Amino acid sequence: MTHDPVLPGWSISAGAAVRYDIVFADDVFDTVNGSLAALSVAAYPATTRRFVVVDANVDRLHGARLRAYLDHHGISDDPFVLETSEETKTLDTVVRVADALDAHGVDRRQPVLAIGGGVLLDVVGLTASLYRRGTPYLRVPTTVVGLVDAGVGAKTGVNHGGHKNLFGAYHPPVAALLDRRLLATLDRRHVVNGLAEILKIALIRDRDLFELIAARGGALVDERLQGDDDLEVLTRAVGGMLDELRDNLWEKRLARLVDYGHSISPALEMKALPALLHGEAVAVDMALSTVVAARRGLLEPRDRDRVLDVLRAVGLPLTHEALDSDLLRAGLAATTRHRGGRQRMPLPTGIGSARFCDDVTEGELAVAAKELGDYR
Amino acid sequence: MTHDPVLPGWSISAGAAVRYDIVFADDVFDTVNGSLAALSVAAYPATTRRFVVVDANVDRLHGARLRAYLDHHGISDDPFVLETSEETKTLDTVVRVADALDAHGVDRRQPVLAIGGGVLLDVVGLTASLYRRGTPYLRVPTTVVGLVDAGVGAKTGVNHGGHKNLFGAYHPPVAALLDRRLLATLDRRHVVNGLAEILKIALIRDRDLFELIAARGGALVDERLQGDDDLEVLTRAVGGMLDELRDNLWEKRLARLVDYGHSISPALEMKALPALLHGEAVAVDMALSTVVAARRGLLEPRDRDRVLDVLRAVGLPLTHEALDSDLLRAGLAATTRHRGGRQRMPLPTGIGSARFCDDVTEGELAVAAKELGDYR
Ligand SMILES: NC(=O)c1ccc[n+]([C@@H]2O[C@H](COP(=O)([O-])OP(=O)(O)OC[C@H]3O[C@@H](n4cnc5c(N)ncnc54)[C@H](O)[C@@H]3O)[C@@H](O)[C@H]2O)c1
Ligand SMILES: NC(=O)c1ccc[n+]([C@@H]2O[C@H](COP(=O)([O-])OP(=O)(O)OC[C@H]3O[C@@H](n4cnc5c(N)ncnc54)[C@H](O)[C@@H]3O)[C@@H](O)[C@H]2O)c1
Repeated sequence: MTHDPVLPGWSISAGAAVRYDIVFADDVFDTVNGSLAALSVAAYPATTRRFVVVDANVDRLHGARLRAYLDHHGISDDPFVLETSEETKTLDTVVRVADALDAHGVDRRQPVLAIGGGVLLDVVGLTASLYRRGTPYLRVPTTVVGLVDAGVGAKTGVNHGGHKNLFGAYHPPVAALLDRRLLATLDRRHVVNGLAEILKIALIRDRDLFELIAARGGALVDERLQGDDDLEVLTRAVGGMLDELRDNLWEKRLARLVDYGHSISPALEMKALPALLHGEAVAVDMALSTVVAARRGLLEPRDRDRVLDVLRAVGLPLTHEALDSDLLRAGLAATTRHRGGRQRMPLPTGIGSARFCDDVTEGELAVAAKELGDYR
Repeated sequence: MTHDPVLPGWSISAGAAVRYDIVFADDVFDTVNGSLAALSVAAYPATTRRFVVVDANVDRLHGARLRAYLDHHGISDDPFVLETSEETKTLDTVVRVADALDAHGVDRRQPVLAIGGGVLLDVVGLTASLYRRGTPYLRVPTTVVGLVDAGVGAKTGVNHGGHKNLFGAYHPPVAALLDRRLLATLDRRHVVNGLAEILKIALIRDRDLFELIAARGGALVDERLQGDDDLEVLTRAVGGMLDELRDNLWEKRLARLVDYGHSISPALEMKALPALLHGEAVAVDMALSTVVAARRGLLEPRDRDRVLDVLRAVGLPLTHEALDSDLLRAGLAATTRHRGGRQRMPLPTGIGSARFCDDVTEGELAVAAKELGDYR
């Protein structure tokens, strides 16, 4: 850097420290369970009152218990109920939540409570991030995706102009409270959807987790992850996810193994909207990468088949009709741009390990897509 | 925090480090001057191309030189020209800039160039913060407020629902390049406006700076801060500002001396919009605090008179008709909320020093406003 030596200059170095807790607890809306109230008060002891945002479906299914809880613990008389969908995960919805927050009123450091799936957590997280340049918030994820992924990292975001999460912020919560009992009311498809993100963690780093899922198969879905063994599935997934995220919370490093399954899927998910859920698009992308890796000789055919079998066994799709060569080209280009000019695409090298590649071609992906279409 | 001891939990601790440079350089749009191009390339060596946003008035006045510069250094053929105003400092404008940025296309870490006054820097800074959860950017402030304040800290923001900067982010630039020569084309009022923020720094921490300004008086404005002595005014202001900000870039501490003049002024500025500029509203607030401090016996009457005299001598207002008791009440309440439930209002204890008070009443402010109305 050259500058006039007679004119002054300064260099500012500063560090921000964040710390947040992620804890499992069962039945967090039962009045006798102090976890949620305690976390909330610990984050801001001056008052128990909070602005609470709850997903409309969660409110339909759990609203009576939730309201009794909020009332009993002096948290809120009137949670803000938000209808959520991938299509309305937008800046307009952020503004709507912010207006309600502003009308409700909070002191500068009075945290907000966000209760819902990944969409709600992403929207409320971004609202909290923008409001007064950063308002603290607590997360109570209510879906599998929320519990193992959207609820536990630092990211928030909304879609814009046909791009997944084009706008967002790194704004970790002050705490996240993971209640697997809430998953009991999910429909099958959303459990399956969440299994995609769990399988992602298994495939990049945890073969034991893969074997657990393989052994349980569709039963995981039937039981909505309520079985005694399923707690281990969830905690391994969360623990593995956190190990991947904790040293790279702000994504200074763009090579991230947790991007496995997230290279072509953002474009696919947005193009196929609303046909494919987030995890379903991720599953298709994982299947694609698995076949590409096998064709490159990175992955044993036997391992490829096991991966595809397990994806199928839990009910995830392996391909989708929107996966044409235009989409593959655009998806690859967008991902390369998003990763700072290099693909940094995680490809599996076994079950539980992966490496980054920068030279995957559209043609390779097209061949793999065709192979998956034929896969029976 | 209580939680079921048999269920797992994690604590995530992480730190983000930021580093950015702030350098003075003269005539940064002269083709031979390498500073801007060098800072830009240092921030992202892969390509010289940048998405450039320039304030429409700056483009009118300096566009030919700027475009020649951008062309010569391979930075851009086509800067995005943004009309700015306090009324259009909104999220809608952020989206408009983001759409242009997205259409232009940048790699994940390819920095954006922001050239303009405080409004443009705040808008483009927030756009950069939101776009892909954080895109780097360089700032070239072109106003006095930009040079000594909006250009050098971490804050970005837009107005919403009648509130100043209700939405925003802490998103420091990768570098800021301060060119006092650009100030030569400002109209008088915007120079005066910037002197309010310079006087703020003088009043809270730098009596020598105050004396410099007092000695130069209206000549500072006549000469648009181009005089040889005026560089010291600017560098003391920037240096003092940075010393106040550097340990508290994310405002973890809500007691901030740089909030001097910013307690009632946000409400006043928004209410009187567009009659009062930001610095003018700040000047009214500083005058108000000065009288309150004198009435409390914190400040000598002689110092109070000097402060008011210098504010007036450079052409700043001491009061405004919108300053009625409703506004004082609402302004005090909003500020208390914004500072986490306490006023933390900086009051001067001399010229160059201040302390925080939590118990300023609306009545005290009303009396001070009346006294200022009578002040001749
Ligand atoms: N921020 C991150 O790091 C991150 C990580 C992964 C995914 N995501 C985002 O998360 C979103 C997907 O999350 P999702 O799958 O949770 O979607 P979602 O939030 O749309 O929830 C899925 C559906 O389940 C309903 N629901 C929520 N809780 C329920 C419950 N307990 N019982 C019954 N129904 C319930 C919702 O109303 C919704 O209809 C995507 O937008 C994705 O981009 C973000
Ligand atoms: N982020 C921060 O930390 C911070 C600090 C202080 C102020 N601000 C914000 O800054 C804004 C005020 O900034 P401002 O006073 O620069 O206002 P501004 O950006 O509106 O600029 C003032 C006017 O000068 C014009 N202009 C800009 N450069 C010029 C030049 N070189 N010659 C001639 N005209 C020029 C602009 O077009 C505009 O009409 C407010 O919105 C305030 O909230 C932010």
